[in-house]
Amino acid sequence: MTFVPSESGRQANAQIALRTAFAPQSIAIAGVSPRTTGWGGGQMFLRGIRNLDRVPNVYCLNPRGGELSDGTPLYQSLADVPGPVESLISAVPASAILGLVDDAIAKGVKVMHLFTAGFGETGSSERADLEVEVLRKLDEAGIRLIGPNCMGLHSTRGGVSWMDDGSTTPGHVGMLSQSGMNASEVVGEGKRRDINFSNVASFGNASDLNEADFLEFLAHDPDTNIVLAYLEGIRNGRDFLRVARDMSRARKPLVVLKGGLTEAGSRAASSHTGSLAGSAQIWNAVQRQAGFIPANSIEELLDLAVTIERMPQVSGPRCAVLGGGGGVSVLAADICDRNDIPVPWFADQTQKVLREFTPVAGTSIRNPLDAGFMFEGDKMETALTAVADDPGIDWLMVHTGADGGGPASRRGNLAEQMANGLAAIAPRLSKPLAVVIRQPRTNAGFERGLDLQHRLNDHGIACYQSIESCARAIRRYLDWQNR
Amino acid sequence: MTFVPSESGRQANAQIALRTAFAPQSIAIAGVSPRTTGWGGGQMFLRGIRNLDRVPNVYCLNPRGGELSDGTPLYQSLADVPGPVESLISAVPASAILGLVDDAIAKGVKVMHLFTAGFGETGSSERADLEVEVLRKLDEAGIRLIGPNCMGLHSTRGGVSWMDDGSTTPGHVGMLSQSGMNASEVVGEGKRRDINFSNVASFGNASDLNEADFLEFLAHDPDTNIVLAYLEGIRNGRDFLRVARDMSRARKPLVVLKGGLTEAGSRAASSHTGSLAGSAQIWNAVQRQAGFIPANSIEELLDLAVTIERMPQVSGPRCAVLGGGGGVSVLAADICDRNDIPVPWFADQTQKVLREFTPVAGTSIRNPLDAGFMFEGDKMETALTAVADDPGIDWLMVHTGADGGGPASRRGNLAEQMANGLAAIAPRLSKPLAVVIRQPRTNAGFERGLDLQHRLNDHGIACYQSIESCARAIRRYLDWQNR
Repeated sequence: MTFVPSESGRQANAQIALRTAFAPQSIAIAGVSPRTTGWGGGQMFLRGIRNLDRVPNVYCLNPRGGELSDGTPLYQSLADVPGPVESLISAVPASAILGLVDDAIAKGVKVMHLFTAGFGETGSSERADLEVEVLRKLDEAGIRLIGPNCMGLHSTRGGVSWMDDGSTTPGHVGMLSQSGMNASEVVGEGKRRDINFSNVASFGNASDLNEADFLEFLAHDPDTNIVLAYLEGIRNGRDFLRVARDMSRARKPLVVLKGGLTEAGSRAASSHTGSLAGSAQIWNAVQRQAGFIPANSIEELLDLAVTIERMPQVSGPRCAVLGGGGGVSVLAADICDRNDIPVPWFADQTQKVLREFTPVAGTSIRNPLDAGFMFEGDKMETALTAVADDPGIDWLMVHTGADGGGPASRRGNLAEQMANGLAAIAPRLSKPLAVVIRQPRTNAGFERGLDLQHRLNDHGIACYQSIESCARAIRRYLDWQNR
Repeated sequence: MTFVPSESGRQANAQIALRTAFAPQSIAIAGVSPRTTGWGGGQMFLRGIRNLDRVPNVYCLNPRGGELSDGTPLYQSLADVPGPVESLISAVPASAILGLVDDAIAKGVKVMHLFTAGFGETGSSERADLEVEVLRKLDEAGIRLIGPNCMGLHSTRGGVSWMDDGSTTPGHVGMLSQSGMNASEVVGEGKRRDINFSNVASFGNASDLNEADFLEFLAHDPDTNIVLAYLEGIRNGRDFLRVARDMSRARKPLVVLKGGLTEAGSRAASSHTGSLAGSAQIWNAVQRQAGFIPANSIEELLDLAVTIERMPQVSGPRCAVLGGGGGVSVLAADICDRNDIPVPWFADQTQKVLREFTPVAGTSIRNPLDAGFMFEGDKMETALTAVADDPGIDWLMVHTGADGGGPASRRGNLAEQMANGLAAIAPRLSKPLAVVIRQPRTNAGFERGLDLQHRLNDHGIACYQSIESCARAIRRYLDWQNR
């Protein structure tokens, strides 16, 4: 049994439904448990929505009634809610879903999100039939559906969320994800890296509203400048390609992490969202046609958001690599080269300037610049300026650790000195600057590295977690610019 | 002008000199500054040696005499030292080196380490001539040389070190490195990952004692079970290959990170240690002939040490991947597949056991096992046992984050529960278990992740920082086993 939506159902405009879903005036959560241990059913959504505190009317439902420990009433059914409900989140079990759908139709709900899972993705034909029945009823009533089997929406401006620990700062990065956990990871990692989000959608099975609808929403969303995507399968390839191509023409960046490109991954995707993932070969062709930026991991999605938000002016690949340590410099050059980022020797004039204040012994001034010395005193500006003005260089990468270098007493000091120095110098340089803060080894190092990164981000300086991830992100961004 | 060692000089046995250098009865450090700011010249070595507290007699030299703030006397010359000096560390400038060498010969020093840099690696012919003159004098006197331009030795049992923050716990991993900073990084990272070292050498220019001598020492060192190496160039290819092949035959693992394999890296290596780095193609042939394990980064060196110390019994590549999150599981399968680690579906019998206590909705029980549920209660042992007993599986990978999952109040709890659970179960499983603790996002997450890792390491369980690094290390180890 397959569901074919009616014309009238299709015409219930997806984009209007999504505008309501991302920023509702009223929302109800069905399946909120008064338990305080565990996930507490729909309590997760209640916490996320309350954390953002922007939706005027929020209601909780539980067939047993009662109230939460803070006095929030639990309505026994949607009919009992004293006001209209534009958007409905379902956290009830699949077995109770048909009743809830009938109630939603009766109440005049406009859009429904099924956190509820246990439908077609289980592989059971009975469960698949149930999904079709839900879709048929909603379609008939003109209610659009998000999910099932997904976390739903996170909107810093609209006020809906499934996360109580995501950043609440409105930003300009949008995301669509077939996996709720991957969306949570990206938003959580984004918080750490000072990447703030506009609208995020986890859409799971995508039985009704699918990746093309969400992409279209984000493509036209004035609050969204960059779109990140995690996809396993594509339901509506034609429309997805059309919107992706429109974005490419409009130079609005779309970065896509595709899960299930290998045989093992494809098998896993079929268990996860019932997606037929397709081969890497086909996907590469799609990528070229659609003109988006490919990413291979969640870290890469964020590396690209960092690059696009903070290094948009990078105009070529030739990199000056600056940081302490001869061996680290050799490996850094290898990594850049492998990622197709050239590390050319500096011009004679640049080397001349650097030589003036470089200890002769064991210090390369050619590129990479073995520049541990440079973070002491006022040498940093001279060195960075000379390197930035080198005509053979397009951008600068400064790499540093947060743990090491010299006796323990000097370390915190150096990190702070470096952050302040770089923040002051970066705007005066003729080329863009990226900073790599290598992985810390100690609690103190982690804290210091995070602090350094936040300070640099405050000044709009792009930070990365490894030389490799920095080089790779710049390369991918340039490839997209030159597509 | 090239230096050709005399027969008598060669016969001053390198291995005897290295035994003395790694575990001297008496050591002098030349060029110790009484300044307490900055590196304090040779004070770095004094701190490292005092931290290990195993060398009976330690002397500090400074041509101006005086004493350190703690009353340690600074002898004006080696001749003033009241007792024999077996090993001499030089932290004097290159301009003062010939005088120090004469003093060392007069004092009867057996082995000398030049931290002093500024010789052949600068590209200046005058500096290169000075290096040759030093070598000629030492050779004539039968004194062997470590360096110049290097950090020298770190020996947890012998008591010499340039690090005051490396682990002091004697271990069984040896290392040789052409870069001091890379050696420090490996030892520092090792401390974080509970990998302890036996003897470590940073040998820089390798003008006399070279990579083959250090490898020979570590190959026969009864305290060393695994050897890690960072190399830029090879001085003595014939002997290096011979020792590497002997180690391969003796099944003593050697893991080599080669710097300068790309064009940019090779240029950087020539500035760093004056090495001619050679091409990747030639190096691959060397690797096959010599039978060592190749690594591409410092992280990989440690991943292999972790694998060899804690997963030696892994007998095949087929992996069961267990952890929370459908999308994360899809990406995990992709990563394993790309690293040639198969993730086959579990046998029917295994799936049957898993199904009994798995919530049906949205949870894959095929492999990867979307197993967030499993860390609650006593389900973990049932799940891990069923999976380990699957005849199609060779090893288990459990992946987890340290930040996330559920409300904040439950997180610390879960990490502890998981560590205790895994530690109790792992020894009873029929297959080896690896744990991936994903990168943390918060100070609390970092602390919790590190704590979880230390707890698991205490029980001999291998921990990795990403699914990719785990899969890659197991693959490389298996390839070496099957070479």
